[in-house]
Amino acid sequence: MRRGVGGVGPGRLPAARSPLRGEGTAVSPDLARRLADVRAATENLCAPLAAEDYVVQSMPDASPAKWHLGHTTWFFETFVLGPHRPGFRQYREAWAPLFNSYYVAAGPRHPRPERGMLTRPTVCEVHAWRSAVDGELQELLRSPEGQRPEVAAVAELGLQHEQQHQELLLTDILHAFSRNPLGPTYRAARLPAGAEEAPAGWREHPGGVVSVGHPGGGFAFDNEGPEHRVLLQPHALASRRVTCGEYADFIADGGYRRPDLWLSDGWAAVEAMGWQAPLYWSEEGGVWARFTLHGWQPVDRAAPVAHVSYYEAEAYARWAGARLPTEQEWEAAARHAAAEGQFVEDGALEPLPGAGGPLLGGTWTWTSSPYVAYPGFRPWEGALGEYNGKFMVNQVVLRGGSCLSPRSHLRPSYRNFFPPQARWQMAGIRLAR
Amino acid sequence: MRRGVGGVGPGRLPAARSPLRGEGTAVSPDLARRLADVRAATENLCAPLAAEDYVVQSMPDASPAKWHLGHTTWFFETFVLGPHRPGFRQYREAWAPLFNSYYVAAGPRHPRPERGMLTRPTVCEVHAWRSAVDGELQELLRSPEGQRPEVAAVAELGLQHEQQHQELLLTDILHAFSRNPLGPTYRAARLPAGAEEAPAGWREHPGGVVSVGHPGGGFAFDNEGPEHRVLLQPHALASRRVTCGEYADFIADGGYRRPDLWLSDGWAAVEAMGWQAPLYWSEEGGVWARFTLHGWQPVDRAAPVAHVSYYEAEAYARWAGARLPTEQEWEAAARHAAAEGQFVEDGALEPLPGAGGPLLGGTWTWTSSPYVAYPGFRPWEGALGEYNGKFMVNQVVLRGGSCLSPRSHLRPSYRNFFPPQARWQMAGIRLAR
Amino acid sequence: MRRGVGGVGPGRLPAARSPLRGEGTAVSPDLARRLADVRAATENLCAPLAAEDYVVQSMPDASPAKWHLGHTTWFFETFVLGPHRPGFRQYREAWAPLFNSYYVAAGPRHPRPERGMLTRPTVCEVHAWRSAVDGELQELLRSPEGQRPEVAAVAELGLQHEQQHQELLLTDILHAFSRNPLGPTYRAARLPAGAEEAPAGWREHPGGVVSVGHPGGGFAFDNEGPEHRVLLQPHALASRRVTCGEYADFIADGGYRRPDLWLSDGWAAVEAMGWQAPLYWSEEGGVWARFTLHGWQPVDRAAPVAHVSYYEAEAYARWAGARLPTEQEWEAAARHAAAEGQFVEDGALEPLPGAGGPLLGGTWTWTSSPYVAYPGFRPWEGALGEYNGKFMVNQVVLRGGSCLSPRSHLRPSYRNFFPPQARWQMAGIRLAR
Amino acid sequence: MRRGVGGVGPGRLPAARSPLRGEGTAVSPDLARRLADVRAATENLCAPLAAEDYVVQSMPDASPAKWHLGHTTWFFETFVLGPHRPGFRQYREAWAPLFNSYYVAAGPRHPRPERGMLTRPTVCEVHAWRSAVDGELQELLRSPEGQRPEVAAVAELGLQHEQQHQELLLTDILHAFSRNPLGPTYRAARLPAGAEEAPAGWREHPGGVVSVGHPGGGFAFDNEGPEHRVLLQPHALASRRVTCGEYADFIADGGYRRPDLWLSDGWAAVEAMGWQAPLYWSEEGGVWARFTLHGWQPVDRAAPVAHVSYYEAEAYARWAGARLPTEQEWEAAARHAAAEGQFVEDGALEPLPGAGGPLLGGTWTWTSSPYVAYPGFRPWEGALGEYNGKFMVNQVVLRGGSCLSPRSHLRPSYRNFFPPQARWQMAGIRLAR
Repeated sequence: MRRGVGGVGPGRLPAARSPLRGEGTAVSPDLARRLADVRAATENLCAPLAAEDYVVQSMPDASPAKWHLGHTTWFFETFVLGPHRPGFRQYREAWAPLFNSYYVAAGPRHPRPERGMLTRPTVCEVHAWRSAVDGELQELLRSPEGQRPEVAAVAELGLQHEQQHQELLLTDILHAFSRNPLGPTYRAARLPAGAEEAPAGWREHPGGVVSVGHPGGGFAFDNEGPEHRVLLQPHALASRRVTCGEYADFIADGGYRRPDLWLSDGWAAVEAMGWQAPLYWSEEGGVWARFTLHGWQPVDRAAPVAHVSYYEAEAYARWAGARLPTEQEWEAAARHAAAEGQFVEDGALEPLPGAGGPLLGGTWTWTSSPYVAYPGFRPWEGALGEYNGKFMVNQVVLRGGSCLSPRSHLRPSYRNFFPPQARWQMAGIRLAR
Repeated sequence: MRRGVGGVGPGRLPAARSPLRGEGTAVSPDLARRLADVRAATENLCAPLAAEDYVVQSMPDASPAKWHLGHTTWFFETFVLGPHRPGFRQYREAWAPLFNSYYVAAGPRHPRPERGMLTRPTVCEVHAWRSAVDGELQELLRSPEGQRPEVAAVAELGLQHEQQHQELLLTDILHAFSRNPLGPTYRAARLPAGAEEAPAGWREHPGGVVSVGHPGGGFAFDNEGPEHRVLLQPHALASRRVTCGEYADFIADGGYRRPDLWLSDGWAAVEAMGWQAPLYWSEEGGVWARFTLHGWQPVDRAAPVAHVSYYEAEAYARWAGARLPTEQEWEAAARHAAAEGQFVEDGALEPLPGAGGPLLGGTWTWTSSPYVAYPGFRPWEGALGEYNGKFMVNQVVLRGGSCLSPRSHLRPSYRNFFPPQARWQMAGIRLAR
Repeated sequence: MRRGVGGVGPGRLPAARSPLRGEGTAVSPDLARRLADVRAATENLCAPLAAEDYVVQSMPDASPAKWHLGHTTWFFETFVLGPHRPGFRQYREAWAPLFNSYYVAAGPRHPRPERGMLTRPTVCEVHAWRSAVDGELQELLRSPEGQRPEVAAVAELGLQHEQQHQELLLTDILHAFSRNPLGPTYRAARLPAGAEEAPAGWREHPGGVVSVGHPGGGFAFDNEGPEHRVLLQPHALASRRVTCGEYADFIADGGYRRPDLWLSDGWAAVEAMGWQAPLYWSEEGGVWARFTLHGWQPVDRAAPVAHVSYYEAEAYARWAGARLPTEQEWEAAARHAAAEGQFVEDGALEPLPGAGGPLLGGTWTWTSSPYVAYPGFRPWEGALGEYNGKFMVNQVVLRGGSCLSPRSHLRPSYRNFFPPQARWQMAGIRLAR
Repeated sequence: MRRGVGGVGPGRLPAARSPLRGEGTAVSPDLARRLADVRAATENLCAPLAAEDYVVQSMPDASPAKWHLGHTTWFFETFVLGPHRPGFRQYREAWAPLFNSYYVAAGPRHPRPERGMLTRPTVCEVHAWRSAVDGELQELLRSPEGQRPEVAAVAELGLQHEQQHQELLLTDILHAFSRNPLGPTYRAARLPAGAEEAPAGWREHPGGVVSVGHPGGGFAFDNEGPEHRVLLQPHALASRRVTCGEYADFIADGGYRRPDLWLSDGWAAVEAMGWQAPLYWSEEGGVWARFTLHGWQPVDRAAPVAHVSYYEAEAYARWAGARLPTEQEWEAAARHAAAEGQFVEDGALEPLPGAGGPLLGGTWTWTSSPYVAYPGFRPWEGALGEYNGKFMVNQVVLRGGSCLSPRSHLRPSYRNFFPPQARWQMAGIRLAR
């Protein structure tokens, strides 16, 4: 299983494709400041970690926190400073292969499952590297070279890329901590319990031809385009996400013991991995608890369920007499929805009660759509083009972002993707019919 | 990896869904005769086999010939005779779990990878069983019970199911023989060499809303419906399939050594399995040969290439500056195409030169479409409903049938499916753009 | 896990090492007749098999019956006829790699786990091959070349090798049949139940320097020599083998649930493989049954226990407050014991009640001795030298033969060997202290 | 593969078995001081490590440095302070399962391959734990309870156990650093090159009955006893170990490409793991380098070869026309040898030129002896009894210690053991014939 978002990649780099769009991005007067903010935010997320916590790779799909710090820095060195900053030299040449995720065209790569073997460079050394690169970036953006649209475009991409890794960093730390019987907490807190939610309603859509994909204006990854028209069937979308309480009812009704509810591959996963509940859930004496970045917490029936695989989402939907939405159905709704939600920037590390309504934030939403190219899709040229297109098989699209996503990183056309068995990302369920 | 077509299943059983359609099937005056013909055809396909050849399971996805003989017979016992023939008793009760492929609701199942362990019942005993069941079927169809539309519907399904297994039987025997260094031949023959094909042309389609899915009237599997409208983009379909010669050019150009041509999972497969050419191809002294049901044969540059995975088809398309068609694009073309081709009933065991044009027969065509439900899809109820729907993840759609398919089994709406790494089925490539 | 006896090998080939010994073998006037008898005996063992039964390889350590028939024939072609019969040509050159077990110096070898893929040559063809080779062997032994001591030596080796494979053939058929839920029987029979055995007594040995290893005179494998002196500690050997009843008491006492009774690797095997009883035992409603060449039979408390691994034998001994004997202790006792027992030639396919006393026949006895070279051991030169020596690591010595062994094949110095986890050979337990 | 020495265990605990011996140990007036020295020495070994270096588990057989620090501390808590210090309470109860290696009777155990997942407790916290336990130990040894022979015995065992883990800690750090392409150094140094060694001589032994095993007087592990007599054959032992130069000649002569030189399992390991040289050796442009605790160094032809498996040692011996010594042959020589050598306490981290002669220190010596119990062996009772006896299968004995061993920890009767494929411990070769 390879992670979807992965070392995640770049995308629709406007300058190279369309001068207009490149320009559009470049004129952003606040890029240098936003860049500094985003880089600092990453480091703030690491504040609660001990040096030891940065090193561990708890499964091949996850990466150590230190690796995220280094990889995002390598990204700026490789795609921004190297090509665009005159006289720039890598901070440490030998580190490049260690922090190249999967860009074959960008040179050799340390094997992904070996990332946890790298005790050196130390956290301290990586921070020094970040600092040096940040300085160079700021100087570049203030220099004449930094005014070129393609520089702004690729710097913006680096910023968005860093935001993706902010969510991944937290996602991977949660997984790493979950492997420790001591149950370490990332941030101590007692989560409030919500009142049980009323049943979800249905929002009808009459079907017909609609536009999906990124309409232009502002940043987007290449896999969000081109915008195009599709023919939707009449359908309805649930007014909120499935809650932990509803999911617990599915479990109590034998959901994990009835093969008729599951896709064949899903049932095989249930049996092979012994799934009996979402990832991080544990039951003792009939009471469910879940492991979170706040340590062990009681399962709150009112909160949106998270950390389910596509297989579980799909089986739940069948049990509930519904189905999952297609990504087009979801996007048609999101185009008109308010952009409210709960985000890491607001201090949310868990999808809280009441977060089930908004379409953005809270938990990612599994769709029923396999991750494939839009008609007319063209990946970026060069090494950056490797990064979304080559994953377009064996993955399922998720939409909407989670509470671990930075708010400014999300939009209705955003396509995340993970293999159907993946559970460690914060993914939940919204029904359709 | 689980096979797509699998023990393959039933589907749109008309009677239960729609009396009209059930009727339509039931009135077929020749069902009893067709049934006798199809059952006999299966046995004719086994004529060249030694008793030892029936037993071997050459990989978990393949099944022994004896198992195909038994499974199709179990299918008639379980779904036709058991429910509909008064007083019917299974020939041997203990055999049922051995020959139940994956129908959880139909009782216990011998593990799929263990099918090659079953030396008993012997081939002889299985033939006796077939004969007894054939007798019962004929009597049922001549009895008053046999006149009921739902009986005709499910008997028709058994017939279609048996046809699917005819192709699987040959597909699996080829694989089994390929594991033997002695290179046994199923049928001795020297294949004629064709003249190299002229470059393929392009057949343009203007796009727009079209109907796809089975329009009703005659048998169809449940996954072929319901018929529905989709919005196609303007596109073009190649006038014929990719030939062995063209594919050899791809190999010679380093196709299997360039990661930039491959999906990420595809390249992982190339590396993990050491792929250097289609399955069954072997090179010595710069000359390619391929293993066939006629034993080892020279690779004929004019013949359609076969036994490639989705990953290879997709990489080839990228190398050729094209792409694979969606299943909707393919079906739109096939609705208007002549139903010519080369089929096992004509004695074809290999896609011969000149077979690249027809849309049906020759080789299956990989599409770019993941195998998902059509809007409004409803699987059949009961055990038979397990059989197409539960495989709708991690598979890719193939269209059109192959030379190993019985002619009467194919139609434009027919959806076959295999995992993207599968190569032992007779699958080839037709480009789109 | 690789089988101990394996394709088993040759050994102390007297002629090449010592003319005297070679002579000794060569003068045997009845070699030709014995050879004919042994070859025919192998085929008689196959009489109950259907053609399908010959093909299956039920695990990588086991071999198909057809392979045993072919391998022993290949052995005569390669080591007797090829070097010694003027003008001899292989029956089918292409078959040699298929039936070469592990003799690197004798040419290429089909991978061991792939033996079950070989539906061709058919059983019929292998029988024809055997017949042709038998004819050649008889002619060789009647010719002047056949009178040379080295020919007699290697022909004798071929005979002994064939006898080893007789036991392996039955051992592997039992395993293959056990994989079939129908529980086929090799020979129908209802086994008699014995009266429970009285407790075993102890036969004391005062210790001191004794001789072990083959003393010369008659055939022996190379690993049985040279004869040498060892210093034994005072000890005692049980008067009979452990019975099924005693072993059932061990199970009932939680033997398979108490890690303190097991070697660390043994306990790992218990957990990894879910062992709860000897191989082929099954419990229903508190009653134990075992699968045998006579099909399913009740477990007879009076019969010697069989089909236990070294780990189980060792754990049982600890539970019983005793230990397993060293191979030297066992051999010191066997040198003075009567050569009675139960053997396949007497029609025994199971170790029957009362068979626990004899030191030869019944079941093999696990010793506590790792399989290592005797001081001064020298393997045979050439390809035949590969065959005992190269297995001298990760194996444990078993002594005494079983009821599936031909009587004439056994002697006190005979060393069999299997990995400690192997259970499909007919191995039992005799305690020491 | 499980490591031999493992969390290594206790053994001949004199007090419990024999008051005399217990007394002998207890009267040692310097136990408290030696204990303080040994505990401090462990921490000194960690001085060059960054916090990140303590966490990584580079393979299932290895353990993180932090784990070694914690496990040895847990050992004192569990076996010394818990039973013998009135009112003692564990420092942190929840940590016990994390640092229990394999003592089933001492409670639950975190799975061995998961040790690298434990970022908490941090290094800092573990050091605080060590300090607290050291204080308690010193107080116990100064208290009346500390004067009891059984307390001294088990404290002495804790000390010896800690010394074993000192070597393991360095062994595992070397392995962990070897997984990092940056090639970190534990201690910077340029190793001196030696002059090539003269050919080894042979030291003859006439054979006959000799005594082996620990003769009593001073500490020994249970597996070293009881002392007993064995009958040796006449033999000769090489005057020094095999050098890197000699081993390089073996490589150059195709040693890793000739199956006839290898045990069957050894050759399988060569092929499965792609071995072409000792662990940590790397070749570029015909020149060999090796990775050491001093980083990458040129291979010195004069230094003893290290980091070879039993398979490689055995194959080398066959190539050299010799064999490996039995452990009894080695011990007979070591009983009369001077106890010189190179040890970690002298600052040696590599077996240096000239170290090939001494029987103790430098590198461990592979013997040809499988690791089995001595006649009359009785493991210690209780949890401590688990620790040597339960590994007596599938392992080979090594003798003599290495330069990473503390000098005071070694003696002629000391038996180390590893599986035949293990290479990460500092093991070398001394020939016999």
